[in-house]
Amino acid sequence: MIEVAIGIDIGGTNSVVGIVDLQGKVYKTITVPTSKFPDAVAFVAELDLAIQSLINESRAKFKLLGIGIGAPNANYYRGTIENPPNLPWKGITPMKKLLLNYYNLPIVLTNDANAAAIGEMIFGGAQNMKDFVVLTLGTGLGSGIVINGELLYGYSGFAGELGHMNMFPNGRLCGCGQKGCLETYVSATGIRKTVIELAEQGFPPGVLSKYKPEELNSRLIAEAAEAGDLLALEAFKKTSEILAMAIVNTVVFSSPEAIFLFGGLARAGKLLLNPTKKWLVEKTPIFFKGSFRLLFSSLEEKNAAVLGSSALAWNELKNPHNF
Amino acid sequence: MIEVAIGIDIGGTNSVVGIVDLQGKVYKTITVPTSKFPDAVAFVAELDLAIQSLINESRAKFKLLGIGIGAPNANYYRGTIENPPNLPWKGITPMKKLLLNYYNLPIVLTNDANAAAIGEMIFGGAQNMKDFVVLTLGTGLGSGIVINGELLYGYSGFAGELGHMNMFPNGRLCGCGQKGCLETYVSATGIRKTVIELAEQGFPPGVLSKYKPEELNSRLIAEAAEAGDLLALEAFKKTSEILAMAIVNTVVFSSPEAIFLFGGLARAGKLLLNPTKKWLVEKTPIFFKGSFRLLFSSLEEKNAAVLGSSALAWNELKNPHNF
Repeated sequence: MIEVAIGIDIGGTNSVVGIVDLQGKVYKTITVPTSKFPDAVAFVAELDLAIQSLINESRAKFKLLGIGIGAPNANYYRGTIENPPNLPWKGITPMKKLLLNYYNLPIVLTNDANAAAIGEMIFGGAQNMKDFVVLTLGTGLGSGIVINGELLYGYSGFAGELGHMNMFPNGRLCGCGQKGCLETYVSATGIRKTVIELAEQGFPPGVLSKYKPEELNSRLIAEAAEAGDLLALEAFKKTSEILAMAIVNTVVFSSPEAIFLFGGLARAGKLLLNPTKKWLVEKTPIFFKGSFRLLFSSLEEKNAAVLGSSALAWNELKNPHNF
Repeated sequence: MIEVAIGIDIGGTNSVVGIVDLQGKVYKTITVPTSKFPDAVAFVAELDLAIQSLINESRAKFKLLGIGIGAPNANYYRGTIENPPNLPWKGITPMKKLLLNYYNLPIVLTNDANAAAIGEMIFGGAQNMKDFVVLTLGTGLGSGIVINGELLYGYSGFAGELGHMNMFPNGRLCGCGQKGCLETYVSATGIRKTVIELAEQGFPPGVLSKYKPEELNSRLIAEAAEAGDLLALEAFKKTSEILAMAIVNTVVFSSPEAIFLFGGLARAGKLLLNPTKKWLVEKTPIFFKGSFRLLFSSLEEKNAAVLGSSALAWNELKNPHNF
């Protein structure tokens, strides 16, 4: 018998269900098309079928110990998904309760960035750390903050929304309704906006001028920068300056041992990491110099979301909470 | 026998030693002139005399259980005061070890803003809270962050330095060497600078124009604002906007139940609180609206520092740590 957990990564278009052991081996995954289930109850029934299929393929082999779920707008305390703009279910969905109808096991639900952080702690580069932060740089910017070995949820259950750190009093308009939020600058969407703004401000156009604004994306910008395009490099420089400010604000707050970058924009690798490190040399207050490291996530990218979600279950099994 | 703790607030000019019971009654305090003791060993000998005098006044009555010390540049983990710019002792002073030579009791050392936070938790408005932040607005801006009922120290031991949150990429020069730190705007020094800048930028001069820049202070600015002076009111509006940004950044990070304002500039009361609350209505992301309260410290001001320091000892006696 191999003890396993199920990891479920709920996304707007697709959700991925995977079966993972404590060594972080992902045996198999099944994709469930979220957007085809306007009814959450029917979606959970489909999740159950997927889980059964993963387990039954070799029932003798696997012993299921728990289920972890990463989802947008998830509330850990209540086990709910609340008013998600990008999921088909309106209002409050009691996801944990719905799954408990099928599985009488530890079930943990939190947002995807928190799942990434626990994934880093159980399977990745933070295995020996008690204080660290994961920043997920995708369409937006998510974050998972671990303090004393535990995810930070705060009084509301929604702590760790660093994407909405207020960077400029009258900055870019954010999807949350505020101006100047970090994720309007430091994300795939943010760097695209920066390229467009630089071009509008008269920065000499380079290879990116052949694309219409709606065709631009962070991959094209990274390729242009890689090839030495000055506008693309300037966009990475500006993005990394604001990322460095946000990292300084993170360090003066919770003084983590490391900050991990994860996700689409982080794939730009050294294009982002090197200028950010330079800015950090300049911007880190003297009493924090050398006190933290800036690292890339070491989770295998293909399975990172499922690993992170399953890690929520492994973490709960190690340190049971009651709520 | 009344069980008591000693609270010691170490300041650059004077230190205050007080004797406090678990109800927060401050029986007596003695002032020790820090600046007259270039030798930390002699200073601790003087602290011992002060403590003996406080206890001996009625030896039958008091049973001393512990000692708490609030000091600038204090390291909680190591029990040291490290490179303090405003104290007479250079390098690293093993304050806890020096006091342990006299008292074989729980001795806790941390910085003054952390002491204020524990004071608020043991004796003040945070008695039933597990997640809150205290901002001390004096010459600089200090902060104490409590998460799950425990002070946040982080990996380095220096977490919670919100005065050095980076607010503007090329902002005012801070004593720490960085530019744009929160405390260069939101502090007694910061608001004075704002008044001077507003006057230089041509804001119509008011009653404050009769003072030379070096005569200006936050009390005079508060009095002018109280009397309706437009420049002084504008300075409070600008200060409170940046304070609101910092509070939003605190809320998205750790989602506290409350943020307490404490110290000299907080004494300006509604002049600071009302515009900050207005900015917060505007600047708080929708998912955190109504999730936290902005409050004044409820510690009696005269004895707040000694209460906070002694609270460190009471807190340690309740929840012993080993290090």
